[in-house]
Amino acid sequence: MEFTLEDISEDEVQRRREVYAPLADTVRELVDAVIRTQVSDDVIADARQRIAEVVAELQTDQIDGPYGVRYTREFTGMPWGNAVIGLRNAIAPPIVTELEPEGVRSTFTLGAAYEGPPGHVHGGVCAMILDHVLGEGASADKVPCYTGTITMRYLRPTPLGELVAQSWITERDGRKKIVHGTLSDANGVTVEADGVFIVPKTWNGTMPRAKKG
Amino acid sequence: MEFTLEDISEDEVQRRREVYAPLADTVRELVDAVIRTQVSDDVIADARQRIAEVVAELQTDQIDGPYGVRYTREFTGMPWGNAVIGLRNAIAPPIVTELEPEGVRSTFTLGAAYEGPPGHVHGGVCAMILDHVLGEGASADKVPCYTGTITMRYLRPTPLGELVAQSWITERDGRKKIVHGTLSDANGVTVEADGVFIVPKTWNGTMPRAKKG
Repeated sequence: MEFTLEDISEDEVQRRREVYAPLADTVRELVDAVIRTQVSDDVIADARQRIAEVVAELQTDQIDGPYGVRYTREFTGMPWGNAVIGLRNAIAPPIVTELEPEGVRSTFTLGAAYEGPPGHVHGGVCAMILDHVLGEGASADKVPCYTGTITMRYLRPTPLGELVAQSWITERDGRKKIVHGTLSDANGVTVEADGVFIVPKTWNGTMPRAKKG
Repeated sequence: MEFTLEDISEDEVQRRREVYAPLADTVRELVDAVIRTQVSDDVIADARQRIAEVVAELQTDQIDGPYGVRYTREFTGMPWGNAVIGLRNAIAPPIVTELEPEGVRSTFTLGAAYEGPPGHVHGGVCAMILDHVLGEGASADKVPCYTGTITMRYLRPTPLGELVAQSWITERDGRKKIVHGTLSDANGVTVEADGVFIVPKTWNGTMPRAKKG
């Protein structure tokens, strides 16, 4: 797995954020509207045609393959294609995690696009977000690691709406870090997660830690 | 959680599939193009404007809140807003599972929108899909159940591209069903999953089982 160097300034990173984030946000609104619309078949057919035209235009110049994970020389990360946090990826809510003294925390809102049981978040989406947030919590000590195992305990259905995900390291044992996390609504925890994360054998204790992208 | 009755014929279900599936497929292409495009800022701004116009038109008549899970009187399911299998949900790949003698199986392709590590599927996306496929495998015996716990073991990174997910019940113990599943690429298993599913106390053994939507 190769990371990509983008030799650009911090100003250019910020400029690109301002170009792509609004586009992806509008596509997020489109995803929601396509699920919930009740307009006539003719309007649907016309909408599809107009979206196809935009797609064709965007595809006239595009990178070959997926976006990858990009960093500047200053180690500013641009994981903008990422399925959970990517600012260019309309599938991503996107989650933004904040570093806290004890780990990481993220507050976000999930709408119709994340539904499983009626009115509730798909259990798989809860797992997707907790997997990511546990990974961020596992790396909060700046020692890189990858996910070994992860276990979800579904305590009760998670309603769509505003949610909080948190995680923190509970134990270290050689190259293993044990991480605990929760997904909560206003009434408390809905899903608990435990993960075992592994520090690579090749880690030499000096790998630079990228800043948030 | 309430399921919604749509009092429509099988022909009408099929007609609606043919209206919405192509629209959502085109939005899936748009999500991919927004991640990978390199067109100029002007073209991006224009694309955003045109998508916003389509969104406004689709929103002129829409349902209040998320899509829910709908059934016809013949118990044909229409989980079309579902985050993993919804044919109207551009976030969903969508996964289609086939019933096999021993459980369920799904073959699908994941592109740039599902990326985590460079060129590879986000671990959380693997968890999301396995959560869903284990749930389908758990219900393959037509006895309804909900997810209690689910554990993922990441054996190696999962490359983007064509993948297979499978699951089957390995054990029954009172109201518990133990379910095993795998995610595989052409070279074998990349992620293993184990789940404990619980049959509701209220189940009386006669609940009708909906057909696939």
